[in-house]
This record gives sequence, C-alpha cells and structure tokens, in this order.
Amino acid sequence: MGFVEKLLTAARHNDSLLCVGLDPELSRLPAHLQALPLDRAVTQFCREIIEATAPYVCAFKPNLAFFEQLGVDGMRVFQQVVKAVPSEIPVIADAKRGDIGNTAKAYAVSIFDEFGCDAVTVNPYLGYDSVAPFLAYREKGVILLCRTSNPGARDFQDLPVQGPDGQVRPLYEVVAQRIQAWNEAGNCGMVVGATYPEELCRLRTLCPDLPILIPGIGAQGGDLEAAVRAGVDARGEKAIISASRSVLFAGSGPDFAHAATREAQRLRDAINKARRHQ
Amino acid sequence: MGFVEKLLTAARHNDSLLCVGLDPELSRLPAHLQALPLDRAVTQFCREIIEATAPYVCAFKPNLAFFEQLGVDGMRVFQQVVKAVPSEIPVIADAKRGDIGNTAKAYAVSIFDEFGCDAVTVNPYLGYDSVAPFLAYREKGVILLCRTSNPGARDFQDLPVQGPDGQVRPLYEVVAQRIQAWNEAGNCGMVVGATYPEELCRLRTLCPDLPILIPGIGAQGGDLEAAVRAGVDARGEKAIISASRSVLFAGSGPDFAHAATREAQRLRDAINKARRHQ
Repeated sequence: MGFVEKLLTAARHNDSLLCVGLDPELSRLPAHLQALPLDRAVTQFCREIIEATAPYVCAFKPNLAFFEQLGVDGMRVFQQVVKAVPSEIPVIADAKRGDIGNTAKAYAVSIFDEFGCDAVTVNPYLGYDSVAPFLAYREKGVILLCRTSNPGARDFQDLPVQGPDGQVRPLYEVVAQRIQAWNEAGNCGMVVGATYPEELCRLRTLCPDLPILIPGIGAQGGDLEAAVRAGVDARGEKAIISASRSVLFAGSGPDFAHAATREAQRLRDAINKARRHQ
Repeated sequence: MGFVEKLLTAARHNDSLLCVGLDPELSRLPAHLQALPLDRAVTQFCREIIEATAPYVCAFKPNLAFFEQLGVDGMRVFQQVVKAVPSEIPVIADAKRGDIGNTAKAYAVSIFDEFGCDAVTVNPYLGYDSVAPFLAYREKGVILLCRTSNPGARDFQDLPVQGPDGQVRPLYEVVAQRIQAWNEAGNCGMVVGATYPEELCRLRTLCPDLPILIPGIGAQGGDLEAAVRAGVDARGEKAIISASRSVLFAGSGPDFAHAATREAQRLRDAINKARRHQ
C-alpha cells in the first residue's frame, strides 16, 4: 500500500485529519520521566504519547532533530519510537533533508530502508535531482516544504519570482507548481503553514490533489478552523493537520498521557467540525 | 578560537585550501574492507583517509547522510570519525539542516554540542529564524547553501527575483545578500558550486570576506583553476575547495590511503598554483 492510500485509510478509520508531531523537547518532559536516563525518558514519553493518541490521528510525525540531539543514542531511540507506532498508521519522518543525488539517495536509504518510515519531509531548494532519489521510492511519501509557518518564511519563500511560465508569483507558488509536476508516481505532498490561510487556499487551488501537511496550529498560533477549510481537498480529505507541543505537553505530571488523549480528541473533533461545516 | 580563525590557521599551516569530503559510499569501499561489518568498515576507511590526507587539507567535511544510512550505528561511527580528525583541523558537518526555531536549536545541539563539529552546512529556505539558533554559537561556523553544484540548482536558485532592494537578480544572489547581513558575529560562510565560475566570481564580489565552501571539483567535473581564481578572497584565502570521491576512491585496493594521499597532494598543489598565478 502506498503512502497516500495508507494515509487515507488511517484517516477514514480514525475519522481524523490530526497528525501528532513527536518533538520531545527535553526540558519539557514530565518531571517523573526526567529522573530517567535521557534516552529512556524520551523513548517512554513518545511510546506513551503514541499509545494515548493513536485512536485519534491519521499519522505520526517524529522530528529527527529531537532524536539527533541525544547524540549517539538518538537513532536507536528514533527506531524504537517508529516501531511503537501501530502498523496501520503512517509515520512521517520530519527530517527536511535536501542534498545532491548520491547524498539524497543515502538519506532515502536511511529513512525508508533503515528506519522504515512511510514518508519524509524534504527541502526543495536544491531542485529536482535532489528530490528524485526520494521519489524513486514510489510507495513512500515525499512531502516538500512549500510555505512554512515561521516568520523567516518571508525572507525567501514570499519573494516575487518570474516562474518558468513567465508569470510573476511568490517563490512558494513556483515551488508548488514544480511539486505538482514531480508528482508522476502520486507520492508527493507539500508543507504549508497554518498561519497563512489565504496562501493555503491558493495553494490548494493550484494543487487540488496533493496531500498538504499543515503545521502551525496549537502552540504556533494558527487559526485551526480557517486552516482546515482552506487545506482540505474537494472531498474534505488530504489535509494532515499537525500539532506537536499542544498535545505532547498538554499535561506536565504523571497524567500527561491522559491529557494528551483529551487534547488529541478535542483537536480531532474541532478539525472535523470545521471540515464538515464548510 | 572561532571557526574562521581555526580554518585560516589550518589552511596556512598546511598551505592548503583543500577540504576532503568524507562521503563513504558503501558500494565503493575497498574490497578488503567490505569483508568487515559495515560500521567497522566505514570507521576504518574514514580513519585511514583522514590520517593519509590531514597534512594536505584545511578542513574535513563528513557528510551526515553516509553515516545515517548505517541506521542506529551511524551516529556512533560519525562520532568516531569526527574524533579521528586532528584537533587543529576544523570539521564541517555537511548536514544541510534547516528547520524552524526550536527544531533548529536541537540540530545545533546535536552537531555542535554532542558531536563537537566546528561548522555546519545549513539550508536557507526557511529564512532567518531557522538560521539564528546556529548563529548563536558564535565560535562555530554556519555555512549556508547559496548556489549549489547540481543540475537541479536551476529549478529555484537561478530564478529572477525581486529582492528587498527592488532590484531583480537570481534568487541565489538575494540569498548571498542575506547571508552577508546575517554575518554579525563573523561566523557565516556560503556554499557555491565550482561548476559555475562566473556566478562564483559575482558572489565573491558581493561577499568579499565570507568563507566560500566550493564543492564540485573532481568527480563533479568543475574546472578547478577557474573555481579557485573566482572563489578566493583578495588575499587568496577563505575558499574551501572540497573534493570527495576523487580523493576517497583514488585507489580501490589495500593501497587506497596512499592513493588518497597522492590525490590530495596533487589537488592541494593545483589549487595553490591557481591561486598564486591570478
């Protein structure tokens, strides 16, 4: 089963477009876990979050940086966390990799073959041949950064660019057009921040069928309802609404997993309400 | 000692602008090492290359992808390889990371604190706040992708953009201007491929003092002499001329380290000849 089909199946089964981002910030782990060695604390935290929220999500999105900061143990922890995700729920490795051909291939081997993730986030700045080695895994998802949710996104992504068709548009729209063209195997997606619903709406029009990963709700302050309405496809699907800190750190005590369940359920329901009252 | 000073000191001591890229492609390791378990083979290969070429380089540049493809063992191998570099030679982690604030900070912790690298390559697509957490390590080098050496670089980097000053220029020039502006602590650099010496020349004019990391000579086919002349600063320094495969795989037998020595020496001398006959 390819990534998009696995995503849609999980989303329908759990009636959810919510993706929980696994960004285990060390300083914010619950106090009772901070007594453990760091690698064990992170593993246990992520396992409990996964178990507590799995019925309410369409995907999990572990962020490599928070595992890499554990040093040599990081990738073992990452492997354990990926394995803790139920097999029917897709794992999106939030890695934002991007490098030339033979290097991109090595990254794809790492993320898809070694760690068995279902999809990866990729930075498009190096162009087609940096993306092709990921695309060659036709059953895996390749989710390209388009318009990100941070303030610095304006520095380059928003600049007016003369695209290959001669029209002047923001760089992120040219990127979206290229992603659309690269989607021959139907395994592309794109990242568009929730903080700019009008841009999201325009990008959904340019790319009616692509899955859109939408971070920036919750802690980052995006408007959930506007983002959901702008991001879903014509069938009310293919938006992956990602929340990390607001779910992971909904509670800070020994009951953090219960708090995460409640927050995931609340978000799932709020997303469903928005997409069903368009 | 900050990165730029460490780089200049090593370059002057070894009279070299050559940087050896450590990209251990598994299928190209010498036959006698392929009998070992992969992690040991990669460690031994890199150690021997480092020992064989250290007198002829200004820096080593291990590429994270080739360690990550080893799976859970990869970061242990990476750590051993970084530790094998003599302390007076800077290590540039070729990681091409780029993510929003708190995630970028975790990547910086990994590369600078956990693994002790002297510099890192960073993708600029997410803008200033994705770069700031790296820049905050004022003694470490932050080398931003500007104009890369691969064919796909044309997809976005070359597009005509209206910059903040109202002028239309290729995106990579706008990126170079921003890097220049971000260089408050004097710890920025940029990556410009050797395959386009005219662009390199123009970027050197825009950024007269930045260290420029120049990959693409040797296996990637750039013209060494033109790249060196275009890339060095007014004093004939601050170009980091990177070669990977042509050095690593100069030989394929048990004598690969000797072959690497000869190739590194030859490249160093060719670079010096070019920079001294401008």
